[in-house]
Amino acid sequence: MRAAVLGLGLVGGSVARALAEGGVAVSGWDAEPAALGAAARAGVVEPLDDGFAGLEAAEVVVVAVPVPAAPALLRRIARRVGGARLVTDVGSTQRSAVAAAGAAGIGACFVASHPLAGSHRSGWDASCAGLFRGARVYLSPTPATTPAAMGAADALWARMGARTEPIGAEVHDRLLAWSSHAPQAVSSALAGALAGAGVPREALGPGGRDTTRLSDSPARLWAGIALDNADHLAPALAAVERSLRSLRLRLAAGDVEEVEGWFRTARFPPAAGAG
Amino acid sequence: MRAAVLGLGLVGGSVARALAEGGVAVSGWDAEPAALGAAARAGVVEPLDDGFAGLEAAEVVVVAVPVPAAPALLRRIARRVGGARLVTDVGSTQRSAVAAAGAAGIGACFVASHPLAGSHRSGWDASCAGLFRGARVYLSPTPATTPAAMGAADALWARMGARTEPIGAEVHDRLLAWSSHAPQAVSSALAGALAGAGVPREALGPGGRDTTRLSDSPARLWAGIALDNADHLAPALAAVERSLRSLRLRLAAGDVEEVEGWFRTARFPPAAGAG
Repeated sequence: MRAAVLGLGLVGGSVARALAEGGVAVSGWDAEPAALGAAARAGVVEPLDDGFAGLEAAEVVVVAVPVPAAPALLRRIARRVGGARLVTDVGSTQRSAVAAAGAAGIGACFVASHPLAGSHRSGWDASCAGLFRGARVYLSPTPATTPAAMGAADALWARMGARTEPIGAEVHDRLLAWSSHAPQAVSSALAGALAGAGVPREALGPGGRDTTRLSDSPARLWAGIALDNADHLAPALAAVERSLRSLRLRLAAGDVEEVEGWFRTARFPPAAGAG
Repeated sequence: MRAAVLGLGLVGGSVARALAEGGVAVSGWDAEPAALGAAARAGVVEPLDDGFAGLEAAEVVVVAVPVPAAPALLRRIARRVGGARLVTDVGSTQRSAVAAAGAAGIGACFVASHPLAGSHRSGWDASCAGLFRGARVYLSPTPATTPAAMGAADALWARMGARTEPIGAEVHDRLLAWSSHAPQAVSSALAGALAGAGVPREALGPGGRDTTRLSDSPARLWAGIALDNADHLAPALAAVERSLRSLRLRLAAGDVEEVEGWFRTARFPPAAGAG
């Protein structure tokens, strides 16, 4: 198999490493010459130039640039990927990728991929071949995606040890606004509030460290994701604000039953079968 | 050494286990006969009755009941602990414990202890002898605490492998409102919002799981802590609410620089010397 990975940061770099270790011939590109150079020197990728000459040879093309940059890149490569079995991405939102692939005329071979794997670290230096082992990868088709392309996406991620799960792009983006993007924003808001009050990270115990861990994530990456999914994210943030305000009001009222009731319901229900 | 541990939940049970393993004769009590029976059957404690007969023999007394229950218990035991080198607690707030010890007339031998160790699990069954190994323990004196009592508190926690740190009760409670109680409330608010939106725990990735981990903590315990420290906690919660609202407004405005600026400042400053 021949694959191309466009964007060699944490996620793209890890895709390239995983495929290369599995014997796939990987060509690669990154907007940053330093990242591309490092990946080439490591023997992981054959470098592609900024005109993407030779991209036609790739059977599988993985676009791994930040969410806001993906539509323009899909337009740039569209005329070179007509023969590919699969073009996919790795972004944290699906609607915009699906729409961009359709607009670029490559909806038939496109599947939006969102691997639930990552790190608060970023860049080629943080990438590793095992990043996707055991991870869940959401796959969202375009209205035109062929069964063959869907099968190729399945096979691509299975090769890297991940478990795929098909999901509509709209359902995905709503779900992820709550399950992933809101936790990121809440963790950031808490860390920022602590820093603003002069509380250093070193003052935190294990629980505070866990709750603020995501706040170290790259700002530019998350700004792109949050804006791309703002319509679903805003109600999730508002729900957390309302909940915190409700706790404040109950504390001000000083009623222990009311405060305990808040903590009793502010949690996930117990797992089925748990005691 | 002879010690008494009153309250045999996660923290008290772990104190009793750690001391017993170190060769200390530990007498114990719990409001729940089942917990006391389990601790006695495990050979960890000699049970004390509800009148605390024989408590006079203890050189060190550790009160490990929920924050709201501590003042009444200190009053009940005050006439029996006059000869103790140290009476201490393990609660997550210090002002109320310091005030209660003073009011009970045992301020001279009392030091408020707050071990930064715990778990979202609770109860005797979750206790373990190693809970405090490497943990930080804040020590707050009363206005009357003797140097000998402070030294005994230091030695008590050192024996269990913890590092002690002296801190005024007022400074402690403000710091912990931000560093520990706010993370708990924020984690709970997020989990409650997710559950309310029908998002199951299983939909979370590693980041979402970390951010909501604290929400499994016992509701009654945290209601007591939050109410006891409400004057310091409320401003911390309000700061998080304001930050989330600010992000929502920037998302609504759709300005990528503004959103990126929010994520760039909503974090701890880089550690000194970090790149």
